[in-house]
Amino acid sequence: MNQIELFSPASVANVSCGFDVLGFCLGSIGDIMRVSKTKTTGVTIGKVTGQNLPMDPLKNVASVAGLALLKEIHSEFGFQIDINKNINPGSGIGSSAASAAGAVFGINELLGSPYTRNELIRFAMEGEALASGAAHADNLAPVLLGGFTLVRSNHSLDAIKLPNPSELIATIIHPKIELKTLHSRAILKTTIPLNKATEQWGNLGAFISALYTNDYELLSRSIEDKVIEPYRAVLIPKFEETRQSALDSGALGSGISGSGPSIYALSKGRETAEKVGAAMGAVYKKINLEYQLHISEINTEGIKVLRRE
Amino acid sequence: MNQIELFSPASVANVSCGFDVLGFCLGSIGDIMRVSKTKTTGVTIGKVTGQNLPMDPLKNVASVAGLALLKEIHSEFGFQIDINKNINPGSGIGSSAASAAGAVFGINELLGSPYTRNELIRFAMEGEALASGAAHADNLAPVLLGGFTLVRSNHSLDAIKLPNPSELIATIIHPKIELKTLHSRAILKTTIPLNKATEQWGNLGAFISALYTNDYELLSRSIEDKVIEPYRAVLIPKFEETRQSALDSGALGSGISGSGPSIYALSKGRETAEKVGAAMGAVYKKINLEYQLHISEINTEGIKVLRRE
Repeated sequence: MNQIELFSPASVANVSCGFDVLGFCLGSIGDIMRVSKTKTTGVTIGKVTGQNLPMDPLKNVASVAGLALLKEIHSEFGFQIDINKNINPGSGIGSSAASAAGAVFGINELLGSPYTRNELIRFAMEGEALASGAAHADNLAPVLLGGFTLVRSNHSLDAIKLPNPSELIATIIHPKIELKTLHSRAILKTTIPLNKATEQWGNLGAFISALYTNDYELLSRSIEDKVIEPYRAVLIPKFEETRQSALDSGALGSGISGSGPSIYALSKGRETAEKVGAAMGAVYKKINLEYQLHISEINTEGIKVLRRE
Repeated sequence: MNQIELFSPASVANVSCGFDVLGFCLGSIGDIMRVSKTKTTGVTIGKVTGQNLPMDPLKNVASVAGLALLKEIHSEFGFQIDINKNINPGSGIGSSAASAAGAVFGINELLGSPYTRNELIRFAMEGEALASGAAHADNLAPVLLGGFTLVRSNHSLDAIKLPNPSELIATIIHPKIELKTLHSRAILKTTIPLNKATEQWGNLGAFISALYTNDYELLSRSIEDKVIEPYRAVLIPKFEETRQSALDSGALGSGISGSGPSIYALSKGRETAEKVGAAMGAVYKKINLEYQLHISEINTEGIKVLRRE
């Protein structure tokens, strides 16, 4: 194999009750990446379409992740990464995670798959660190493992794949502003009230239980964030109104996707998810704010190989 | 039915990663309670053996819980509660929860079971509030529902029963000092670092996932408490040494039971659980501190009816 083309999906991290640990993978939006063997060693960035991304391998998230992998394993050849970037950077649906995960996945395949998908997370984290200033796996784990994932520990890197009810559909709205994770992280306080923390882990525990038991009602009751959302909500135009419009339209729950500005909602069934999307869109239409809307099943597969050559 | 006799079990709350929300039910130790119909209405405390408990119905946890139930439902008759108290108050294995839960369970049965076990939790919470100064359901839920339980919310009272791996055995050691929940709660700070909170909910999420998937290794990695244990450990003689001796003897994990002073360990299989108990006991023998040791399966049934008359 000399070349691999793949779909590296967008993802939703935090999911209200699971700040820095919970995430899920989307199916309807992602980057198309092509990784090709080169004679010279190292990693280069080739053709980039869709967005302006740094061409310097030390400044591009994809190549930095790839280079992290190549620090650990010897390769006689190098790699060129071409990216058709469909995910907007700073939109809150794991743009850098898709780049980083796609790069290490492609390189690993061309090397004959010495690493499992789970093992690839820690290399991709070096790309994430470049983008957000902190190495987190909450977007990377769902992109690489698919479905819902829990990162038990970001330090010792312990990522678990979780099941999900099959009728769960995600609605994502991206109001066209850009928020850097770096900035929406800086707004957080370094301590939180113990009683709020307790509520948060009660909700996360219940959310995970609901994923195993297909309990949509419990899932709905667990989607709550009194710890992070109150601080970040102010960075997102009309957040509360948009979230409420999703709930009023039948969503099981809604909150900030990752560090925003995208807002996610989870619904039972596609029909409700589409109604929810229309209601959320109407809020932004009223104030003439451009937005993008994605409606997607939970992508339980994660990164998908499109072509091997 | 004029009289019911029941076994109201001890329980372990918090379980390291689930402060105020997680708990499990024990099988080998519990109170024997008898609830009998009386001609006069209200609730009285009859014979108490094993411990000195308040005889005033307004000061006894069992009768206070029973009276909370009787505020909501009319009864032509009253109830006498006799208690053979095997669980030491202030030992950290849900002594007050057993009393409160047993009382409301018995009264409910004599009334023809108008409430489900889950619905009884909120009445029993009034008894708990008397004992600990705060109404928590983390011991009550396992006593009434059995097995492992998660209290998603103490406010809206949302308790969920969780599954557990069948080979899980608990070892509990109670060094003979008494700690009031009131006091071990006062030692806690009202805020916690966000990064510690994140680790905690990562661990709780993983613990719950492990219960569903019978993943003993993940369970083991998740039993960690960097939020509460550091404060409370100092109240328990030789806590760190005892905990370490459990881990060295093969326990999956170990920590403070409830608000202490009891220390729990979870092991795979009875043989390991007994070895763990011996090792923990050896620590207290060395300093001539009296202790009680309990080795128990996870009691998935909860309160058990012994006799109906």
